[in-house]
Amino acid sequence: MSIQNISSFAAGHWVAPGAGARHIASAITGEVIATAGNDALDVQAMLDYARNVGGPALRKMTFHDRARMLKALALHLRQNRKAMYELSFNTGATQADHQIDIDGGIGTMLVFASKGRREMPDSTIYVDGELEQLSRNGTFMGQHICTPIQGVAVHINAFNFPVWGMLEKLAPTLLAGVPAIVKPATSTCYVTELCVHIMIDSGILPDGAVQLVAGGLGDMLDHLNCQDAVAFTGSADTALKLRSNPLILGNSVRFTSEADSLNASILGPDAKPGSPEFDLFIKEVSREMTTKAGQKCTAIRRIIAPEAVTEAVIEALSARLSKTVIGDPRLETTRMGALVSAGQKRDVLEKAALLGTEAERVFGNPDDFTVEGADANKGAFVPPMLFHCAAPDTAKHVHASEAFGPVSTLMGYRDLDHAIALANKGQGSLVASIITRDAEVAREVAMGAGAFHGRLYFNNRDSMGESTGHGSPLPHMVHGGPGRAGGGEELGGIRAVKHYMQRTAIQGSPDILTGIRQQWVPGAKESDAGAHPFTRRFGELAVGETLYTKPREITLEDIEHFANFTGDTFYAHMDEDAAARNPFFPGRVAHGYLLLSFAAGLFVEPNEGPVLANTGLDTLRFMKPVVAGDRLKVRLTVKKKTKRNEEYGEVRWHVTASNQDDEMVAEYELLTMVAY
Amino acid sequence: MSIQNISSFAAGHWVAPGAGARHIASAITGEVIATAGNDALDVQAMLDYARNVGGPALRKMTFHDRARMLKALALHLRQNRKAMYELSFNTGATQADHQIDIDGGIGTMLVFASKGRREMPDSTIYVDGELEQLSRNGTFMGQHICTPIQGVAVHINAFNFPVWGMLEKLAPTLLAGVPAIVKPATSTCYVTELCVHIMIDSGILPDGAVQLVAGGLGDMLDHLNCQDAVAFTGSADTALKLRSNPLILGNSVRFTSEADSLNASILGPDAKPGSPEFDLFIKEVSREMTTKAGQKCTAIRRIIAPEAVTEAVIEALSARLSKTVIGDPRLETTRMGALVSAGQKRDVLEKAALLGTEAERVFGNPDDFTVEGADANKGAFVPPMLFHCAAPDTAKHVHASEAFGPVSTLMGYRDLDHAIALANKGQGSLVASIITRDAEVAREVAMGAGAFHGRLYFNNRDSMGESTGHGSPLPHMVHGGPGRAGGGEELGGIRAVKHYMQRTAIQGSPDILTGIRQQWVPGAKESDAGAHPFTRRFGELAVGETLYTKPREITLEDIEHFANFTGDTFYAHMDEDAAARNPFFPGRVAHGYLLLSFAAGLFVEPNEGPVLANTGLDTLRFMKPVVAGDRLKVRLTVKKKTKRNEEYGEVRWHVTASNQDDEMVAEYELLTMVAY
Repeated sequence: MSIQNISSFAAGHWVAPGAGARHIASAITGEVIATAGNDALDVQAMLDYARNVGGPALRKMTFHDRARMLKALALHLRQNRKAMYELSFNTGATQADHQIDIDGGIGTMLVFASKGRREMPDSTIYVDGELEQLSRNGTFMGQHICTPIQGVAVHINAFNFPVWGMLEKLAPTLLAGVPAIVKPATSTCYVTELCVHIMIDSGILPDGAVQLVAGGLGDMLDHLNCQDAVAFTGSADTALKLRSNPLILGNSVRFTSEADSLNASILGPDAKPGSPEFDLFIKEVSREMTTKAGQKCTAIRRIIAPEAVTEAVIEALSARLSKTVIGDPRLETTRMGALVSAGQKRDVLEKAALLGTEAERVFGNPDDFTVEGADANKGAFVPPMLFHCAAPDTAKHVHASEAFGPVSTLMGYRDLDHAIALANKGQGSLVASIITRDAEVAREVAMGAGAFHGRLYFNNRDSMGESTGHGSPLPHMVHGGPGRAGGGEELGGIRAVKHYMQRTAIQGSPDILTGIRQQWVPGAKESDAGAHPFTRRFGELAVGETLYTKPREITLEDIEHFANFTGDTFYAHMDEDAAARNPFFPGRVAHGYLLLSFAAGLFVEPNEGPVLANTGLDTLRFMKPVVAGDRLKVRLTVKKKTKRNEEYGEVRWHVTASNQDDEMVAEYELLTMVAY
Repeated sequence: MSIQNISSFAAGHWVAPGAGARHIASAITGEVIATAGNDALDVQAMLDYARNVGGPALRKMTFHDRARMLKALALHLRQNRKAMYELSFNTGATQADHQIDIDGGIGTMLVFASKGRREMPDSTIYVDGELEQLSRNGTFMGQHICTPIQGVAVHINAFNFPVWGMLEKLAPTLLAGVPAIVKPATSTCYVTELCVHIMIDSGILPDGAVQLVAGGLGDMLDHLNCQDAVAFTGSADTALKLRSNPLILGNSVRFTSEADSLNASILGPDAKPGSPEFDLFIKEVSREMTTKAGQKCTAIRRIIAPEAVTEAVIEALSARLSKTVIGDPRLETTRMGALVSAGQKRDVLEKAALLGTEAERVFGNPDDFTVEGADANKGAFVPPMLFHCAAPDTAKHVHASEAFGPVSTLMGYRDLDHAIALANKGQGSLVASIITRDAEVAREVAMGAGAFHGRLYFNNRDSMGESTGHGSPLPHMVHGGPGRAGGGEELGGIRAVKHYMQRTAIQGSPDILTGIRQQWVPGAKESDAGAHPFTRRFGELAVGETLYTKPREITLEDIEHFANFTGDTFYAHMDEDAAARNPFFPGRVAHGYLLLSFAAGLFVEPNEGPVLANTGLDTLRFMKPVVAGDRLKVRLTVKKKTKRNEEYGEVRWHVTASNQDDEMVAEYELLTMVAY
């Protein structure tokens, strides 16, 4: 096998390894397969290129433009994934592991593409939260917005997921409109390099949007400022070193980290041996121990079970783990491959020895296990190892030392409070799972352990068929945890995109806020196009365009007729005395649905036209009762327009219904689809 | 005047000054008026008391309980504010300044009390964002929650707002359910001490909820862990020192800071001399320079105006500033009092001299000004000083050195891009204001300068009557800024409360999520109480309680009758051919409002009962058209209950309407008030 030269992609050019390059060995054979790194890499030129070329190009695009770009990129990667699988075997990963890394990364990008279209505006400014009423008469109001930071995101990734680790950070960063410089861990950077090659060669990304450093970052972090962000995944030691950089601290550079984590899995007090929950627990724990040979930041390091069933857990888990075929990951029969490197194997064995001072090894022997199709002495293989700690309240290492391999420690708990206390002894974790079918137990754990965990994963017989696994961070849910886990947060849907934007409080008049939000604000200008807005096409309608209807009197006959026709003979509409006893009404009142229906009767345009359908209605509030004799009139204003496809777009209307005294009786937002 | 001993309030006891106590001088006379500090203060006992007594007591309360507690506390402080005014004159503050500090602090607490009731649940767990669909059949779902951190919040405040500075941090912290240890700046801690005395003596707070350190914190920060938080307001130098603490970094202790800020105010290109906007600009700048003698983190340090009008700005601003009466703040005629201390005066004059190397002083002379009713040589008085910088693109100090007094620098801009570039040269500010009536200008500034500013304040003739001032952080809007401003965020409504909570991603079955959220999740158990839910009182109704109605057939006559009665003769209901041409419909369809109305007819209970009113409706979506001959039926489930007062509470129902094939045709949430 020839040695591959892994290049960096810097300021638009591929730069081959040079002075200071490092050798990279195969996890399976121990042979050198690649070389990466170049001390002469011009990091300032890379930052300038991102700031002056990539950033401006991305900021010109709307969130929807960028979401479409992500979708195209993800689909292109999917088409080319086989080459990445092939390379990735050298990292020790099995085909099942590749699916987590490579397909998982692509899937994450697709979710951000979809959420970008559905949950963000087709605009360059994100509107965050609701309007705030800052004044009595509404001439001065507040609104939060988010805009992309104007610098660069530096992503420093761990070795275990060379593709997912990059894409899960890249997708929200690009969606935010921020260029990235990606620095993968050197030991698996050859897989990342191929992935970057595929992305760059696709021509889908604007110049400067993504750059790659294979090897060391040099002094790049010393050149960052208040518009830049660093996102780190790796060891707590390295995180501490990076975040202590005086420039990062002094310039308040955004810094997030995802580091060590002694994740726990709790077997619920209700989940007795023999129950579907007990079997599910054994299955999840065993899977988490062996997937990626336990090299997952979310893997289960601590198994917390009722004291009475620890023996049963050891027995069942040992039986299952003993079926794990260890070997060359290219073999279809292999269930667990190798650790990434000889160094990593040394580290795992050292940490396992440390755990051995507080816990007894009850399964797996690193000096005696079988490896299929590879030389156990050359590759970085270790067997799954289960420890049992009999004194978890006084033990230290089992709650603090992460053996980053197929290693886990079982401990018994007395009652639920004890289980929660043990889980929290990790001093901040990425995830804890609880196998229980008792919603009361779930609520107690959520309140007792939530503050110590970035994610709580509940599973039982009802959800196990569709559950996604203790160890899988999903793009929809936040990933990260307090304390030892780094105190950072990634993913979590649009929250992740906001990490690369600045939130700014905006205060001003309704017209100013309308201009910034590109959504009409009550009190802002109401324009009249001279024609009924339902006769105007999507492209013709302007934000602020308004229709005022004539009034219609509501009669007692209308109320009775509506009641009898619809069947809604609620006493507040039909019984004068009962209605008057009600704290909200002066006597018989019109139905809310009668008002809505009459309002529609007042504002619709009956002839065939560009308005295609009423698709929904939001935040309807009835403000004041309407009684017989009141005259209802309606104001309908274009609040917001969102293109959906080439045929039509969504128009959101702000509607108020008022009475003859100009008192508002109802307010709502109406959704319609309008033809292009 | 006797010298006052300022005590700390530690672990339930008032502790008098002792070894290491410092003298505090009056800002007006320079005489020692108080002494504070005690090196023997047991900081570990304070942390233990907060963690073991205050935290558990607060976490037992719901968000609504805590909101009611804040309201009572704020009203009690308001009753006792006069004593605080009296003491506060010694800090150099005028009565107008007291209103910002003391009344502003109380008002902030009231806003959090109100938002806590309106925007948070009456529960101990906050539900953050929407349900996430993680599975095809909905048996496994996601939800983010926030729970209070289980440690202590250490608040380190600046000298300029001894009351507001404490209360704006305390209100969201207590609302979150987290105890606080407050450390005010020593120079004005005697006002804070009185405020804490009033709060503690009221008996409204649980033991351990609030403690006070008058003097130094000792090594308290070295004892913090992943469940604690530090919020700092003060100089960038001190912020850097604190956040570099290896324990804070190593334990990922939450740390936010609000530090230096070279805030800018931009006169819009449209705001010509003679316009209401020009006059407003002069007024706001002059007020921001002199309020609190310019000792405000949000004060305008840089005045950015079109080059052509800089002379006019100097003239108008000088005329206005020359009317500022400086003197003893107890005098009613005084418009500007003293800086807080002789040390602060030295610092301001040094920084002003630094600005003088790049800019010309065009108004105000620190060696020649009048002080009314006090000795200018003994009190810490300085006059307002206006500088003009002719070369702002190359100047450094004017964008980087904050003279924390009545000092500001004017600079001219060529065009809007230049104005934005100058504003951004502050490398991160708390606030920039823009006086403009042009919404296009506003949008350009928002996109160009948003990433550098925590707040953008727009004002013009339309909003000036109700605007709240460039310099006033409001509880509704975030306060904080990137880079030099500290990179932190405070206030901003419920966002501020979340800073003291951990966000946790929850995954599980609908029943598990229902238990944790205390809100029904689609797919969770639907219970039947055996009686129509509209006959059951608020306290009797259970989350998940469900009514299934009989079906009702929709006829063509119904559709035509509804159209003619309501006036809604939209073509999709009336014209078979036109409806069929529409991409959404197979032919004539029933009105959405007909479905809503018939649904109500199917589920209401006509007799007088505990359901008082339908107050609104949310997130209605029509999923599938309904045509003549379809049979409509409805499912109505209690989603969420919120007590409103002693008479009634709000019940939110989840409603689905479906057809004879069990296909969902509409889904919405219905709001009702139900008697207790």
